[in-house]
Amino acid sequence: MKKFLVLWGVLLCCLPIFSQGKNDKTSPEIHEDRSVTFRLKAPKARRVQVWGDFIKPVTIETGRGKFETTVPVNMVEKEDGVWEYTTGPLDSELYRYLFYVDGIGMLDMQNTYVMRDGRKMLNYFIIPGGIGDVFLASDVPHGTVAKVWYDSPALNMKRRLTIYTPPGYEESRRKYPVLYLLHGMSGDENSWDELGRLKYIMDNLIAAGKIVPMIVVMSNGNSPYRSAAGESADGMMVPTNVISKEGDFEPSFNDIVRYVDTHFRTQKSKSRRAIAGLSMGGFHSALISMNYPDLFGYVGLFSPGTPVEVSDIPVYCNISQKLSEQFRKGVELYYMAIGSKDFLYQKNVDFRHRLDSLGCPYVYRESGGGHTWTNWRNYLVDFLPRLFK
Amino acid sequence: MKKFLVLWGVLLCCLPIFSQGKNDKTSPEIHEDRSVTFRLKAPKARRVQVWGDFIKPVTIETGRGKFETTVPVNMVEKEDGVWEYTTGPLDSELYRYLFYVDGIGMLDMQNTYVMRDGRKMLNYFIIPGGIGDVFLASDVPHGTVAKVWYDSPALNMKRRLTIYTPPGYEESRRKYPVLYLLHGMSGDENSWDELGRLKYIMDNLIAAGKIVPMIVVMSNGNSPYRSAAGESADGMMVPTNVISKEGDFEPSFNDIVRYVDTHFRTQKSKSRRAIAGLSMGGFHSALISMNYPDLFGYVGLFSPGTPVEVSDIPVYCNISQKLSEQFRKGVELYYMAIGSKDFLYQKNVDFRHRLDSLGCPYVYRESGGGHTWTNWRNYLVDFLPRLFK
Repeated sequence: MKKFLVLWGVLLCCLPIFSQGKNDKTSPEIHEDRSVTFRLKAPKARRVQVWGDFIKPVTIETGRGKFETTVPVNMVEKEDGVWEYTTGPLDSELYRYLFYVDGIGMLDMQNTYVMRDGRKMLNYFIIPGGIGDVFLASDVPHGTVAKVWYDSPALNMKRRLTIYTPPGYEESRRKYPVLYLLHGMSGDENSWDELGRLKYIMDNLIAAGKIVPMIVVMSNGNSPYRSAAGESADGMMVPTNVISKEGDFEPSFNDIVRYVDTHFRTQKSKSRRAIAGLSMGGFHSALISMNYPDLFGYVGLFSPGTPVEVSDIPVYCNISQKLSEQFRKGVELYYMAIGSKDFLYQKNVDFRHRLDSLGCPYVYRESGGGHTWTNWRNYLVDFLPRLFK
Repeated sequence: MKKFLVLWGVLLCCLPIFSQGKNDKTSPEIHEDRSVTFRLKAPKARRVQVWGDFIKPVTIETGRGKFETTVPVNMVEKEDGVWEYTTGPLDSELYRYLFYVDGIGMLDMQNTYVMRDGRKMLNYFIIPGGIGDVFLASDVPHGTVAKVWYDSPALNMKRRLTIYTPPGYEESRRKYPVLYLLHGMSGDENSWDELGRLKYIMDNLIAAGKIVPMIVVMSNGNSPYRSAAGESADGMMVPTNVISKEGDFEPSFNDIVRYVDTHFRTQKSKSRRAIAGLSMGGFHSALISMNYPDLFGYVGLFSPGTPVEVSDIPVYCNISQKLSEQFRKGVELYYMAIGSKDFLYQKNVDFRHRLDSLGCPYVYRESGGGHTWTNWRNYLVDFLPRLFK
């Protein structure tokens, strides 16, 4: 057996040699006190910085108003050209980050964990000991994640879904409730699974007995496209700033529900279906649930784009009338959440006033922070235990 | 509706600002003559290089012998601090690459397509017009890819599989043959799907009528681990150089076949099962198929590690006797492929001599190149049409 192992040693020597040599150190290194050290060996660099979610945001003022943003912090050059930065103790969370070397944004090549957010790639790490534990794979039963293709006669194409089925689905004969979970702009059917840590959240909360086992369907809300970039004949260009053509995604959602109800063991009633989404996906969730008021008993709007009346587009008109009808027919839960620094905050205030004036009851949660995945993951963890009880 | 679109414009301004400003250009840019230009804006850099599969390898000599390797080439600084390199016309293929800025390896942040190979991340692009077309998503029916968990009593844990089911599987009631496809060292159950472009190869070859629709099961051959790093309670550390404990993965393979045969509509006979793998996965495929000669009618060894007699480990002993018995019981196809520059080349010559001396017939394909994913994808495309005919 030794002979065999020696061979593999030789193999490793033949692989392309990367810059990270024997003097490099771990990055990121999570310390016992939950502080984190980043390291990059760049002996010829004049300035090395790190940007990340752990940096306190600053408020900047532009012609369009005040916004929160986060600016990179300087790393310090130590021995052997290794640049370092150590944070203070961090709250348990998932944090994204990126290096800048003399102004060039680059990933930490010591950390193979990367998230794609639209066209951007970012490294990430998770601090355990709190909400972060919900985002980590644990020693609990795991659900299945499948990438399937459904037929959409409404959009005249085959399109892709990501579907989570809970632990035990394959072995049981029981039927499950379904949560339809929608992404935001520049996202796709992969976003909740990758950026949203969906499968870990589901596995962990189901194992803890905090939520009902359910199927989660993650759709692609970019109606001109079949799937995430590179995964269909639409090609490899990552579209930015995709918004559905005016009002064609919402009616096509019926194709998704039909596919799921005929291909999975679902409980096929309004009281066993939920729809929720972030940003553009919240906009879609509000509109789909009000235009098809017999479909969804539970609605979750996370930092949503709010519906605006457009008289010549059927799904965008008569919004107040449709909301009243939706609530008259019965809503188990209408949940809204937004961060106090979100650029959509005032629009959400306005939409809640409209719900109030129509006498439509909702659950409202306001967090700190802005239009971020940190907030959306947290809203989901807050929303899920309220479903199908 | 306009009002709504303006809001989203504001949103995009709030996202973290990356170094790629308005002067940056597309990278990589694939030209009509199949040459490719790489670009990186790095005005303060003193040397910028690109490494990639498109660079002609050079032979280096070490204490352990001669090996092929590929060294980065210099990019040239153009206006505005943008460094460029343009290849000659390239053959249709999938190519990986990486930049080096003053010696620091970094990804091309303009290209969001990244492959993880063990601990390394690499960008990639595909040149169409030949074999590359097989690796691209096309306008053909797509199969489903699922990440499932099976119980392995032999290894005493739940472990993960990636499973491809062909287009139409969900709608039909028919049963399918199964290919079990195994990764190499530093790989995992994601490798064939991600680095190997498995789903695209299957969709395209099935649509072209070149192969029989089949299920493909991608297992994890690192017996101490449950799954790819970060996706189970094994934690986020990416193990390098994992090799199965001596002889425990091979017997545990029966748990995988049992799971697949009880959870998918499979044709449950030897003549409808194939096993193939690259490098360590070829080693596993050879040993599993000879130790359990009633399981697999088809065997594919791509640049395999070759079995070495270990007398005190049951699955590694009596190799010649087991091979003879395997072929006596009947093998539809025993396929071996390797590159002429592979560091395992001589070991493969020796193994073929052993098969010859035992009177065991096999199909042999020798390519150029070495121990590379380029070869393994190509071997798979050559191997698949030979199955289940």
